[in-house]
Amino acid sequence: MTTTVACYQAIAADKPLEPGTVERRDLRPDDIRIEIEYAGICHSDIHTVRGEWGPVNYPMVTGHEIVGRVAEIGSDVTEFKVGDRAGVGCLVDSCRECEWCKKGEENNCPNAVGTYNGIDRHDGRPTAGGYSQAIVVSEAFALHIPENLDAAAVTPLLCAGITTYSPLRTWGVTEGSKVAVVGMGGLGHVAVKLAKAMGAEVTVISQTRSKEEDGRKYGATEWIATKENPDALKEHKGQFDVIINTVSAHIDVRAYMATLRPHGAMVLLGLPTEALEVNAGNLIGGRKSLTGSNIGGIRETQEMLDFCAEHGVTAEIELINADQINEAYDRVVNSDVRYRFVIDAKTFA
Amino acid sequence: MTTTVACYQAIAADKPLEPGTVERRDLRPDDIRIEIEYAGICHSDIHTVRGEWGPVNYPMVTGHEIVGRVAEIGSDVTEFKVGDRAGVGCLVDSCRECEWCKKGEENNCPNAVGTYNGIDRHDGRPTAGGYSQAIVVSEAFALHIPENLDAAAVTPLLCAGITTYSPLRTWGVTEGSKVAVVGMGGLGHVAVKLAKAMGAEVTVISQTRSKEEDGRKYGATEWIATKENPDALKEHKGQFDVIINTVSAHIDVRAYMATLRPHGAMVLLGLPTEALEVNAGNLIGGRKSLTGSNIGGIRETQEMLDFCAEHGVTAEIELINADQINEAYDRVVNSDVRYRFVIDAKTFA
Repeated sequence: MTTTVACYQAIAADKPLEPGTVERRDLRPDDIRIEIEYAGICHSDIHTVRGEWGPVNYPMVTGHEIVGRVAEIGSDVTEFKVGDRAGVGCLVDSCRECEWCKKGEENNCPNAVGTYNGIDRHDGRPTAGGYSQAIVVSEAFALHIPENLDAAAVTPLLCAGITTYSPLRTWGVTEGSKVAVVGMGGLGHVAVKLAKAMGAEVTVISQTRSKEEDGRKYGATEWIATKENPDALKEHKGQFDVIINTVSAHIDVRAYMATLRPHGAMVLLGLPTEALEVNAGNLIGGRKSLTGSNIGGIRETQEMLDFCAEHGVTAEIELINADQINEAYDRVVNSDVRYRFVIDAKTFA
Repeated sequence: MTTTVACYQAIAADKPLEPGTVERRDLRPDDIRIEIEYAGICHSDIHTVRGEWGPVNYPMVTGHEIVGRVAEIGSDVTEFKVGDRAGVGCLVDSCRECEWCKKGEENNCPNAVGTYNGIDRHDGRPTAGGYSQAIVVSEAFALHIPENLDAAAVTPLLCAGITTYSPLRTWGVTEGSKVAVVGMGGLGHVAVKLAKAMGAEVTVISQTRSKEEDGRKYGATEWIATKENPDALKEHKGQFDVIINTVSAHIDVRAYMATLRPHGAMVLLGLPTEALEVNAGNLIGGRKSLTGSNIGGIRETQEMLDFCAEHGVTAEIELINADQINEAYDRVVNSDVRYRFVIDAKTFA
């Protein structure tokens, strides 16, 4: 009771991805089948493939930024019809019963099911992601993709968009807020655009000025190059309401906390391997918070997409074919992409 | 143009406090003169007296938990009349013009003036606190003390009350919230009572069970004794919405973060000297915050006092005479007080 579709898959932590096939289940009553048009490459895909984030069920089909067209709908589906543009992000299911699911925060459900390297709650089979021709997913975990946005360029928003939108909203970013974005990569450049669209004054904190022109085009009005001036942060004491840190490298948290205004928050999105050091005094004076964020719920992901449609926000992408995935992985690791790779799913065939 | 009143004062970091006198200014139009009835002893007094928190202008009169009766009012005073019970907390002035002052968050004003060891904005003289017979203060920084509460027992609320009330409110504690209070001393026992009065389920995390009976009387329904069971925190994973950490000793932040529910916050009130270590992963999963808090604004301090009046909350105190202050300081340092010392101001004479 499955359909076989072409994909690119990981077969071992130390091997390149290779073409293969993956089984997609026949539709359950609440399922839709999406013929995939575009699949984004996220740094998380690479960490997972290479076994850096824990055990993996190989072969594995990664990809949690997925956009396509609805090709078939289950008997109980009410929110999608055939031909609709639809997307899938980092989650394909959750328990749907806990307090977090009821609040629309499926990302906080302890039994949330990842789009890949997860286990389907019903049939016990591994979940498989977007590097493939089609995906079958409950409509409750599918997103409506606004038709006025470029479908390829909207694809990374399914992860990079919600991952940055949710903390900006959670920490109250609005007209006139002072937002700093640390690192301008896949997440960072989307954070700049979103914060700007929310009305914030946006500063980018980067090691160099290599991406400054882009950053200003996307809405940043200030650029701090930390390699140029080791005291740069000291010159910005008490300036930001929210710092979105998209960088996984180890940072001096104390120096960043000092750049926050009272009630300010530094939100970590990346996962440095080393511990971070902070003094209580950095937090107590001005009641500052060191916090983190991970993706968002389905309702908020739709809200983010609708916000992007209203404000014309998409990611900056480099469109590649499936046979360029391995090269793209190396380039992502080397930060050599402006700013996100998206795979043309036609090339999986 | 001053009045001389009896006090107890610090004359050097390594000397006991001793009796003396302090000058109180004649009333400015917005001032009130409070004849002090009670002055609380806060651990901060001791840190400041002993030079542990930076430079001190000796002789210094400490005390920022002050309750008494209004004895005289300036020509422009509208909120107090002679005979009213009035209090003073940690602040006696601020710039009154910055965004924080305008929001009623004088504690975040960069030019806030401490009740002692500060400098008066008008006459440039050092401020002097509550270990004295009287204080002159702008009515804008005086609090109305509810007459239905015991005046001596309400005194510590001017610091310990607002310091714990404000983060409980900031982090949304309400009916059914799960609150943990780390340490049951001067701050902790008030935090237990306040959280209970807000409708929370309160757990105390303490090294031993020596204060368990008290804690349960004040409203705690669970008691975790960490010395008894080094894995105690591991057995409470994902349980608390808010942790109020009143302890200044170094703690394993990671272990505490694991006991928080999604969106949970650990609020630091004490100042350990060593850096705290935390992993980004402790914060990202469940979007948890490590944060701090320091006292509160005047408006919120009044709100706290009114809340305490409504719920019958006061501190547990040991009333002492002025000549017992030095002994009390040693007992505070040794955590040998249940739970806060209050000086009978009649004995300054």
